[in-house]
Amino acid sequence: VEELLRSSLGVRGVLVAPQLIDAPRGSELARALRARQLEVAEVGPHEFASAAETESPQGVLAIAEKPRLTLDQVVVREPFRLLVLDAVQDPGNVGTILRTAAALGVSATAALPGTVDLWNAKVVRSAMGAHFHHPTVSTGWDQIVAFCASHGISVWAADAAGAQLDAVPRPARLALVVGNEGSGISEAARRHADRIVAIPVSTPVESLNVAVATGILLYELRR
Amino acid sequence: VEELLRSSLGVRGVLVAPQLIDAPRGSELARALRARQLEVAEVGPHEFASAAETESPQGVLAIAEKPRLTLDQVVVREPFRLLVLDAVQDPGNVGTILRTAAALGVSATAALPGTVDLWNAKVVRSAMGAHFHHPTVSTGWDQIVAFCASHGISVWAADAAGAQLDAVPRPARLALVVGNEGSGISEAARRHADRIVAIPVSTPVESLNVAVATGILLYELRR
Repeated sequence: VEELLRSSLGVRGVLVAPQLIDAPRGSELARALRARQLEVAEVGPHEFASAAETESPQGVLAIAEKPRLTLDQVVVREPFRLLVLDAVQDPGNVGTILRTAAALGVSATAALPGTVDLWNAKVVRSAMGAHFHHPTVSTGWDQIVAFCASHGISVWAADAAGAQLDAVPRPARLALVVGNEGSGISEAARRHADRIVAIPVSTPVESLNVAVATGILLYELRR
Repeated sequence: VEELLRSSLGVRGVLVAPQLIDAPRGSELARALRARQLEVAEVGPHEFASAAETESPQGVLAIAEKPRLTLDQVVVREPFRLLVLDAVQDPGNVGTILRTAAALGVSATAALPGTVDLWNAKVVRSAMGAHFHHPTVSTGWDQIVAFCASHGISVWAADAAGAQLDAVPRPARLALVVGNEGSGISEAARRHADRIVAIPVSTPVESLNVAVATGILLYELRR
């Protein structure tokens, strides 16, 4: 909620329970809500629990407007990095990936069909506020391919059998595709990618969690 | 279980349910178990469910001997990388970290007090078999300090306020300390560290998940 208040998203209303005062920075947050003249409803802990989805809610819940962004509204400035999620299914992984993308300065994240809804409550919680300032879109391959072609953006996909990253120069405009937890990148990704890249691991048997792999790739491709 | 059979750990017995045949590579695994002449008990799906802890178990469960390793049994070869977990609490994070450490060729991982038990069932599942060949120890700061001093190992700790990694030459022998999800590295870590290092992020407000941050640091410090 702190991150939401720092963003430009419209906040429709806020639900507050007594335990907010005991949460870290809880009383400052309560003051900030009042100062913003938002519609704040104070409810008891039981009523609050019936609205919250987590086991130990911290006592604050906000309703805000989802930004409705499309791919052609994404601004292309160099260095441009578009992260493309190709059927990444676990909400915790996707939330962690969005948090990482925001922290490492990725331009935007696009979700292809088969990826969990980026605004799923678990994804939003795991992303720790990244949604509120990191641009995200839900789109299809046709749109990605057209967008990348019209802006001169290279498309790379991550796969354990790809080229070692160290050896490859970084384009100024790049879309990076990461794939499903079990089956990796799709056939469409292989078809549309200009290059398949890999993180060197110790033995071919071992693989990395998709959120960790994405973190390493985005870090490595910042430059 | 596949990873366990590839390791040198002693397997005491295996429980198998009919659904194993439908799991990916299930029939090969069933054959491998028979070929190894292990004690395999075949049970029905309900009986199996009462022994398994997951919601949709794949139909195989093995009982094996935990390796009992101490820090002074860890072999120091260059490049030496010891990962030190300083009160990392979430089992999913710790499992993912062990999987990453194994994949990136880390020499061993040490857990300090306050860290979740490395052999907790959730940690073992998230680590995807890393436990069976990546050396892990549970130990205290006194042991870490003595071990690092006697082997000439530099101690670095990760913190958002640390020195940017890019600028720092890598020692041949290094212990990297990562801290708690909420509060970061402990006072003891700050006292014992020769250097505090950071991953450059876009804005100081944002932070990385501890498993992602550890992945980036271990990748960056391989060289």
